[in-house]
Amino acid sequence: MTTAAMNHQFRLARRPIGLPNADDWQRTTEPVPAAPEGGVLVQTLALSLDPAMRGWMNEGKSYIPPVGIGEVMRAGGVGRVLASSHPKFAQGSLVSGVLGVQEYAAFDAAGIKRAGLVPIDTRLGTVTQWLNVLGMPGMTAYFGLLDVGMPQPGHTVVVSGAAGAVGQTVGQLAKIKGCRVVGIAGGTAKCDWVMNELGFDACIDYKAGNVRAGLKQHCPNGVDVYFDNVGGDILDEVLARLAMNARIVICGAISQYNNTTPIQGPKNYLSLLVHRARMQGMVVFDYASRFPQAVAELSGYLKDGRLKSREDVVQGIDNFPDALNRLFSGANFGKLVLGVAPLDA
Amino acid sequence: MTTAAMNHQFRLARRPIGLPNADDWQRTTEPVPAAPEGGVLVQTLALSLDPAMRGWMNEGKSYIPPVGIGEVMRAGGVGRVLASSHPKFAQGSLVSGVLGVQEYAAFDAAGIKRAGLVPIDTRLGTVTQWLNVLGMPGMTAYFGLLDVGMPQPGHTVVVSGAAGAVGQTVGQLAKIKGCRVVGIAGGTAKCDWVMNELGFDACIDYKAGNVRAGLKQHCPNGVDVYFDNVGGDILDEVLARLAMNARIVICGAISQYNNTTPIQGPKNYLSLLVHRARMQGMVVFDYASRFPQAVAELSGYLKDGRLKSREDVVQGIDNFPDALNRLFSGANFGKLVLGVAPLDA
Repeated sequence: MTTAAMNHQFRLARRPIGLPNADDWQRTTEPVPAAPEGGVLVQTLALSLDPAMRGWMNEGKSYIPPVGIGEVMRAGGVGRVLASSHPKFAQGSLVSGVLGVQEYAAFDAAGIKRAGLVPIDTRLGTVTQWLNVLGMPGMTAYFGLLDVGMPQPGHTVVVSGAAGAVGQTVGQLAKIKGCRVVGIAGGTAKCDWVMNELGFDACIDYKAGNVRAGLKQHCPNGVDVYFDNVGGDILDEVLARLAMNARIVICGAISQYNNTTPIQGPKNYLSLLVHRARMQGMVVFDYASRFPQAVAELSGYLKDGRLKSREDVVQGIDNFPDALNRLFSGANFGKLVLGVAPLDA
Repeated sequence: MTTAAMNHQFRLARRPIGLPNADDWQRTTEPVPAAPEGGVLVQTLALSLDPAMRGWMNEGKSYIPPVGIGEVMRAGGVGRVLASSHPKFAQGSLVSGVLGVQEYAAFDAAGIKRAGLVPIDTRLGTVTQWLNVLGMPGMTAYFGLLDVGMPQPGHTVVVSGAAGAVGQTVGQLAKIKGCRVVGIAGGTAKCDWVMNELGFDACIDYKAGNVRAGLKQHCPNGVDVYFDNVGGDILDEVLARLAMNARIVICGAISQYNNTTPIQGPKNYLSLLVHRARMQGMVVFDYASRFPQAVAELSGYLKDGRLKSREDVVQGIDNFPDALNRLFSGANFGKLVLGVAPLDA
């Protein structure tokens, strides 16, 4: 690192109404900070762009405090340790954690904890896989499906956002566990991929057709586990096809995140009563102590070829605002990643 | 019984749209049937009028087949065995089961099973208590609260329809189990009763005021268990006040049963995600094998005075249509019972 290096950042300029636009962001340039005593300086290699980020931009109580106006936008990422006086982090090693939408991030010992900074081992997966299968989306899929969804062999598992970061791992993991898996995704290309490459049993293209008819065709015995990433009408359609004692994992509701009107509540929720079913929310951070177990299992599946991953990398920090919005139009195909430094660096 | 005795019945004439009205019913008169060989003839003493009956009048898939047009309306009740050639049922003994809205019901051996006819012991509770605490409402309260709601001592339990059949037992049972209990009911009289007579810690009068403010005041640490009998806006208000890992028991949604527009879905359902909470439906029939255990426990509480019950008895089978509709206006105060024969008979 030369002393001339500058740090580019995206800060939240104001709280968006509906879909975020350029004026909601402030791009700042600062000198690269020094590594604090007992801490580290990290260069961001790649950032995870996630639907949940939209929620973090809103005011109000949630499972995590909102990003403050003027603060660097919160984002998980993988980076390289440029300087360190912390015994756990060697210079040159790779780490993951909440780096923020910026090219460099400095942390003291307390900041390392707050950011959840941990070393990563690229023998287990690539940098982008550490933002996908081995990162938060994979952890969300693993614990959401197994701990909350509790599928049994032979069960029918439906997952929305099937080609997305969480959905792709949910579906493949459910297949590995012996379930019948039906994806819901937008467009032929995504549906073909989850069926032909990932081995899902069926996929319903919600942009092309009739989700209700697709569920009826592909889930003749009802839906035992529904992993919901989207909310809205699709949640209602699945509610109408539940099997007895079904479990719905509420992971997200991307269809509702940019609403300027109230959230659409599931009008078929009384199907929970008829089918003695349950709908349960989950937040991945609760399972942090068990991440190593999940990483070990999932990286094993990556190694033996039973688990595949697809990342959609948009290169360049200046593309952050547009890249984030690709999530909401469904333009991304696979886990959306913002490349900040050359990934082969 | 004389040979001249006639049996009056209410049959479903057509499927109601919205609130049932007089034209939805057909009153019929038939000779009292004989007890079939190996079966029983039962004289109805009292019938249970329940919100669920409204659902049974609709066409379509539910947890139980709809009542057919022209069929005697389904209703649980307590009756006296007038004639029997079944070894389990002595002449003159009392039974409970699905008798239907009629003065007399005859069952062969298969019909006895279908109707769930069982002897009742009036030393454990009165005839009307056998339709309330010791009947379906009490069983619903017991298994819904304990098995699905899973309250722990010190938890805050909120129950809607607090003065109703299920709600009164839910709240008292939660108190017995060491919880803090907040009721939601319509009107000062009902709120005063659940607080002063049943020992609830607080009650929010939804007709008078602001449910949101009441929940904020009386549930400062959030709601651990919500037992929902009403749905609609109240469900949304409670969702907005959940504690972490809360459980919502979906028992019913009386506010929505006479809708002529779609059911109102809970627009705050993403609170399940924020609070890692779950919403689960229950149907009391699933717990039938454990009813004796619940009856034993609840009748013990009745005996030692820890559990009280209140029934609102409307006398006369011809009052059935109007009496049923009292449920939907909230005019009943306590478990609504239709007296068909003199209860001291």
